[in-house]
Amino acid sequence: MKYFAKIKYSGRRFHGFQAQKGLRTVQGELTSSLSSLFGAPVQVTGCSRTDAGVHAIEFCITIETDGADIPPDKLPMASQQFLPEDISIFYTERCDPGFHPRYAARGKEYVYKILNESARDPFLVGYAWHLPRKIDDNGLLRMKRAAEHIVGKHDFTSFMSEGSRITDAVRTVTSLDVSRDGGIIKVTVSADGFLYNMVRIIVGTLTDIAFGRMEPEDMPHILDSKDRASAGTTAPPDGLYLNRVFY
Amino acid sequence: MKYFAKIKYSGRRFHGFQAQKGLRTVQGELTSSLSSLFGAPVQVTGCSRTDAGVHAIEFCITIETDGADIPPDKLPMASQQFLPEDISIFYTERCDPGFHPRYAARGKEYVYKILNESARDPFLVGYAWHLPRKIDDNGLLRMKRAAEHIVGKHDFTSFMSEGSRITDAVRTVTSLDVSRDGGIIKVTVSADGFLYNMVRIIVGTLTDIAFGRMEPEDMPHILDSKDRASAGTTAPPDGLYLNRVFY
Repeated sequence: MKYFAKIKYSGRRFHGFQAQKGLRTVQGELTSSLSSLFGAPVQVTGCSRTDAGVHAIEFCITIETDGADIPPDKLPMASQQFLPEDISIFYTERCDPGFHPRYAARGKEYVYKILNESARDPFLVGYAWHLPRKIDDNGLLRMKRAAEHIVGKHDFTSFMSEGSRITDAVRTVTSLDVSRDGGIIKVTVSADGFLYNMVRIIVGTLTDIAFGRMEPEDMPHILDSKDRASAGTTAPPDGLYLNRVFY
Repeated sequence: MKYFAKIKYSGRRFHGFQAQKGLRTVQGELTSSLSSLFGAPVQVTGCSRTDAGVHAIEFCITIETDGADIPPDKLPMASQQFLPEDISIFYTERCDPGFHPRYAARGKEYVYKILNESARDPFLVGYAWHLPRKIDDNGLLRMKRAAEHIVGKHDFTSFMSEGSRITDAVRTVTSLDVSRDGGIIKVTVSADGFLYNMVRIIVGTLTDIAFGRMEPEDMPHILDSKDRASAGTTAPPDGLYLNRVFY
């Protein structure tokens, strides 16, 4: 029996999605909770790996088991009492045995939240990057101009953390929006795929550009250089949310 | 030296506002953090007592000290490194020695958030009351009709937890709004003063009325009875936010 499921989680208390011995992970918690629910071993496969502290509004998984035959529409509610309160399954359907949530994904959308106010917000600790230095309207415009250079098909080696074993770093960013809503600056990025830390390096670089440490027009050179050192800082995981997965 | 300050806090990890020996409280944390900042003992007085788990978007305090003469406009930023991350001071001014943040308050506004969706939301654990049973449009209308009876000057003994030592339970509720925004039902209440658990009992009773366990027209009788037992359930602290204090 194989299910496709959409889940939500707060990444604050997890060492990322992927199971690791001795650490609390989303995959680890799902596997043990769902094994209790189904009364049999369960294999959970994710659409992506997320880092420690990264959140998911919509993350896709498959659940394979020979245990109890739970109707898909009952699974979200049935799982609730078994799962820890920082994970929730909100949609489930049956899927083909051959379906893989990572390989089948055509693209993903991430949202990154920056709290751009001098005072800390107790309700956003761990849920936004607190950047007390004001990004003014000109700074926001610079971010938007830089973003335009990122959209499209590029080699994103400069926006990938060193040490990654990826050989083909060509990805297509289909949209990159920067907007302000009160004290929150929101960066929304869609692409056919993402490299390790790609969104966080894009966001960090955009803020460097906002503050005048780099120019929006530097972006094509940063991409061409294929050198991580030419891009800007890596934004912390706190503000990052996997928002949607496209199939 | 006496300051008036506006603060924000997430109540999740506090045993309420008021200092209690051996327990983590907002007043306790403020007192010790600000004593370090001012380099001298500090007396913190609050506008209200909030229960364990109750949050504040805007809570008012006074800070009295003979320590360092910190300019009021510098205090929010200066305090940030001393305060725990779940408390933030966002506004400060000097005030008269005789000013008392509780006695001077002319009224307060509370917001209560109900998550009315079958699935739990990992981002709202501790920040909303999860009520999985659907309140439909008719249920919402029933809540609004009941709310109309609460607005005005009444004896709110029925909406006060037993054991309170208050003798005069007459309060004036100036507004009580019920609205839905997606999966969230928001109850906003303003009054010249609140009794112990008053908002939580009002919200609990409104949900009882939504589900047909009581009628909106029962409200005048509930008030007249001056009997806690005639009102409905007490909503949990999780969804309660002190939103504004009027001076």
